[in-house]
Amino acid sequence: MAETWLASLRTATPQEGFELAAKLARVGVKVTQPSAEVRDKLRAAYDHDTTQLIASSQVIAIHFQTVAAANNYWRD
Amino acid sequence: MAETWLASLRTATPQEGFELAAKLARVGVKVTQPSAEVRDKLRAAYDHDTTQLIASSQVIAIHFQTVAAANNYWRD
Amino acid sequence: MAETWLASLRTATPQEGFELAAKLARVGVKVTQPSAEVRDKLRAAYDHDTTQLIASSQVIAIHFQTVAAANNYWRD
Amino acid sequence: MAETWLASLRTATPQEGFELAAKLARVGVKVTQPSAEVRDKLRAAYDHDTTQLIASSQVIAIHFQTVAAANNYWRD
Amino acid sequence: MAETWLASLRTATPQEGFELAAKLARVGVKVTQPSAEVRDKLRAAYDHDTTQLIASSQVIAIHFQTVAAANNYWRD
Amino acid sequence: MAETWLASLRTATPQEGFELAAKLARVGVKVTQPSAEVRDKLRAAYDHDTTQLIASSQVIAIHFQTVAAANNYWRD
Repeated sequence: MAETWLASLRTATPQEGFELAAKLARVGVKVTQPSAEVRDKLRAAYDHDTTQLIASSQVIAIHFQTVAAANNYWRD
Repeated sequence: MAETWLASLRTATPQEGFELAAKLARVGVKVTQPSAEVRDKLRAAYDHDTTQLIASSQVIAIHFQTVAAANNYWRD
Repeated sequence: MAETWLASLRTATPQEGFELAAKLARVGVKVTQPSAEVRDKLRAAYDHDTTQLIASSQVIAIHFQTVAAANNYWRD
Repeated sequence: MAETWLASLRTATPQEGFELAAKLARVGVKVTQPSAEVRDKLRAAYDHDTTQLIASSQVIAIHFQTVAAANNYWRD
Repeated sequence: MAETWLASLRTATPQEGFELAAKLARVGVKVTQPSAEVRDKLRAAYDHDTTQLIASSQVIAIHFQTVAAANNYWRD
Repeated sequence: MAETWLASLRTATPQEGFELAAKLARVGVKVTQPSAEVRDKLRAAYDHDTTQLIASSQVIAIHFQTVAAANNYWRD
């Protein structure tokens, strides 16, 4: 991952902040399993498993806390 | 998700803040499994499984932390 | 849930704050599984399962963080 | 739980704060399963199950965050 | 645990803070299962189970948040 | 772990902060299972298990909260 994929935590809107949180959750999987081929195979399994969908939603929630704080909750 | 579904984290009351947190939890599942048809099928399974109900409640709790902080705990 | 069930996060004491946190955890389950009948049936299972009891305790802990912060840790 | 069991989140030392966090984790289980008899039976199972011991340790960790913040990290 | 094992959350460096977080995670298990003999037997199981290793790492992460905040992120 | 592996939580960019969070998650596993040989064997299992990949992503998310706060969200 030599290229820049995370230049800033600032986003224009809360919705874009949520999308950034979802991206961070995906990258967290990617750093542990770098093979795109393996991830694609695995995807077929987990996106039909509600336990894992909820777990994914939880990781997004944790990252959204960070992104929201970084943006001062878009109150500025 | 081109339309705006999250314009602000501000809500008038804590209760509306809790409802927003529940919405964020649902959207977190949606971004991982975008097919409404698949989600509907899965729903039949998970809403009778207490482990998953508790896990869902946990994701809501995490988002509620964010929403509550964004609203300065409705103290203003 | 048209009636008001969460008017404020302020409580007089930490103990009442803990009780509010427990309530928020229960409501989090309720918004996912709105049927009281189904929840009652499920309850028989989960309150004898230590894994789920600990998970419930964790959801309460997360909400207690929020309620405690909202009350400035009852230091005022 | 009519009696007062949580009068304050302040403790004299970090160690007492950790003990309070452990107590809050236990009470979180208690509010979900109020029967002491049932909890005693269940205890025999979970305290030999490392998954559940780690999960218990996690709930304590979450409460310790709250207690530590309430005490301003014992820096005063 | 009558002796003092946690006199302060302050550490000289982030690395020592991480070690303290790992210690807090271990103590969290200890307060739930006080028998060293039982814990040693259990250890043989869990340290070869990646799910539990990751869960242990998560508890350390939660405590490290607390320790890092207590040290003002070692910025002083 | 006598050598210094964590001199500071400051990083130049959010992306380097994310990489540091991933490192902290790995070290959290290492302190529980110090044998590199055992960890290598275990790795073959967990990096094909989506549940564990998501759990790893969650630990990274928790550490990223700490690192982001330590860097004042790279707003300075």
